[in-house]
Amino acid sequence: MTSLRPGCTIGILGGGQLARMLAKAGARLGLCAHVYSPVADDPAFEVCAARTIAAFEDETALAEFAAAVDVVTYEFENVPSQTAAFLEAHSLVRPNPRVLALTQDRLTEKNFVRGLGIETAPFDNVESVEMLAAAVSRLGLPAILKTRRFGYDGKGQIMLREGADLSAAFEQLGRAPCVLEGFVPFAREVSVVAARGADGAFRGYDVCENVHEHHILALTVAPARISPQTAAAAVEMARKIAEAADYVGVIAVEMFVVEEAGGELLVVNEIAPRVHNSGHWTLDGAVTSQFEQHMRAVAGWPLGSTRRHGARVEMRNLIGEQVDEWPDLLAEEGACLHLYGKKETRPGRKMGHVTRVFEGRD
Amino acid sequence: MTSLRPGCTIGILGGGQLARMLAKAGARLGLCAHVYSPVADDPAFEVCAARTIAAFEDETALAEFAAAVDVVTYEFENVPSQTAAFLEAHSLVRPNPRVLALTQDRLTEKNFVRGLGIETAPFDNVESVEMLAAAVSRLGLPAILKTRRFGYDGKGQIMLREGADLSAAFEQLGRAPCVLEGFVPFAREVSVVAARGADGAFRGYDVCENVHEHHILALTVAPARISPQTAAAAVEMARKIAEAADYVGVIAVEMFVVEEAGGELLVVNEIAPRVHNSGHWTLDGAVTSQFEQHMRAVAGWPLGSTRRHGARVEMRNLIGEQVDEWPDLLAEEGACLHLYGKKETRPGRKMGHVTRVFEGRD
Repeated sequence: MTSLRPGCTIGILGGGQLARMLAKAGARLGLCAHVYSPVADDPAFEVCAARTIAAFEDETALAEFAAAVDVVTYEFENVPSQTAAFLEAHSLVRPNPRVLALTQDRLTEKNFVRGLGIETAPFDNVESVEMLAAAVSRLGLPAILKTRRFGYDGKGQIMLREGADLSAAFEQLGRAPCVLEGFVPFAREVSVVAARGADGAFRGYDVCENVHEHHILALTVAPARISPQTAAAAVEMARKIAEAADYVGVIAVEMFVVEEAGGELLVVNEIAPRVHNSGHWTLDGAVTSQFEQHMRAVAGWPLGSTRRHGARVEMRNLIGEQVDEWPDLLAEEGACLHLYGKKETRPGRKMGHVTRVFEGRD
Repeated sequence: MTSLRPGCTIGILGGGQLARMLAKAGARLGLCAHVYSPVADDPAFEVCAARTIAAFEDETALAEFAAAVDVVTYEFENVPSQTAAFLEAHSLVRPNPRVLALTQDRLTEKNFVRGLGIETAPFDNVESVEMLAAAVSRLGLPAILKTRRFGYDGKGQIMLREGADLSAAFEQLGRAPCVLEGFVPFAREVSVVAARGADGAFRGYDVCENVHEHHILALTVAPARISPQTAAAAVEMARKIAEAADYVGVIAVEMFVVEEAGGELLVVNEIAPRVHNSGHWTLDGAVTSQFEQHMRAVAGWPLGSTRRHGARVEMRNLIGEQVDEWPDLLAEEGACLHLYGKKETRPGRKMGHVTRVFEGRD
């Protein structure tokens, strides 16, 4: 098991806010960050020790990057598979890139989860309008048609309701390979943010509850309003997934909670092989932030305490023009403001977040 | 009152661990840091958006720096007065450099504090062996002879005990202008870390208690074991000092606590016009860290909450080879490790620190 020393360099693919917060968390532990991104004004470039501005397909730049760092990690799951393969041949990559292949394709991911005996939404593979029609007749409507690859924040998906024009929907998604997901009548959405160390140790944060608006995470509250048994089962699912993938780093598993007569049923929605927006509350609300936890894991170091501060922690995203509330948030007693340093405000763009830690008894 | 917007740049003079933690705290709020230091491998260069490696006397570099930033601040009080004057002519400097003149000279500082009706140790000006002899006969021994300028971590001072060779002592300090400080029979050392905003708002953290070893801070515990009345009086002294200096930013005031029949007497030892080692516990142990607080003040923004987490917070410095304990500290449940990224371990050098937040009732 490779273990780094302070002063070593962790290479990060991607330069967005996740890379920015990873770089800062690494610096806290005496680790240098080398950020690799094709976008020159990316937020992470402002807080890192070394930078490469190059395309992910630029093998000369990738080789230099791999030679300059002690381990490579990434802030997003859509790292091109060739990039990942090239880096793995030249450097240690954590988490191992096999998990990218797994999570880049919704069909592969769902089959993997099912293979572990974990529930997912009912789904069918869709490669043609005929297959879509067959899937609809099997799963019923409403259902959600999603491209198998490159979807995020609601992009690449269409809700199909009674009477929908299936052909038009498939056309709208560019006739790309899709999955149709049956409707899950969930009571709430939760996620498990957890980490697995290079030594196989596993630690989950409190399961948190998420509210999405327009398919983008708006609010996370920790802990989630679920029974302790359900919470333990959720963390156990994340552990199973991480172990099966021989995962090293922070992983997030999004789940639906369905209320049934017999109790709460957990249905896995999505796996993110990286630090996750629903774990941002740990920056102010836990002993070890998810960013430090990821850097610890990737460095081959012991995982830190996931203990929560306060009785309840709330994290709200600042999306698009919501960031203009910054003067009020700065002035609000006890609010912890985080701004990502993005040069341009755009609708739907994550510009920052604010955390509130509430004391008092549960 | 000048107030910055997110995306603005704060220039920091000095590139040590204080600048490093300031830069990171600024980034959290969407502020860019431009670090200016003559030392190319300084720790702060690893986490800043822009850097100038140049001497503090290089007026071309200073002018470019002043033009590139929205406000200038500093991580150390020994900024050459000409540098400060030059920058003030070209930029906004916070805290205002008059406080540098005040704190760079122990005699001026003590007279200033006394002028506010606040106790200091008894002291005398010493510019010759004759003046030293007169001071000794007035203040008695033991007493401490300190150079008026450029002392820190016990450098530039000699303890004089009964029978000391006064001439040799004065010689040893290079016959520099000195003060002789009478002995204070203190029960404990405490410090007030506080901030004053550009709007005049003032907020102190919990008074903390400090233990020095070999003249270097070893341990800080918050809160200090003093009465609530004494704690309130200590914060009030810091406020008086900050207001009299028209101060903007984080300030630290070190004090001795003398136990007397009538209660606890506070004696001001030293003022640091900057974030301070005894405030490092706030990174893990308070809602707003001293570094964020300083950046808020310097940006002209409202001050953040100084509320403490937990019942007690302890911060230990990792001095010299103590940093080799990092693997144990990483593995210790609940310990928060901070390493400064210094390339070389030297005796007496501050390499990092570790914070422990203890829960439970007071």
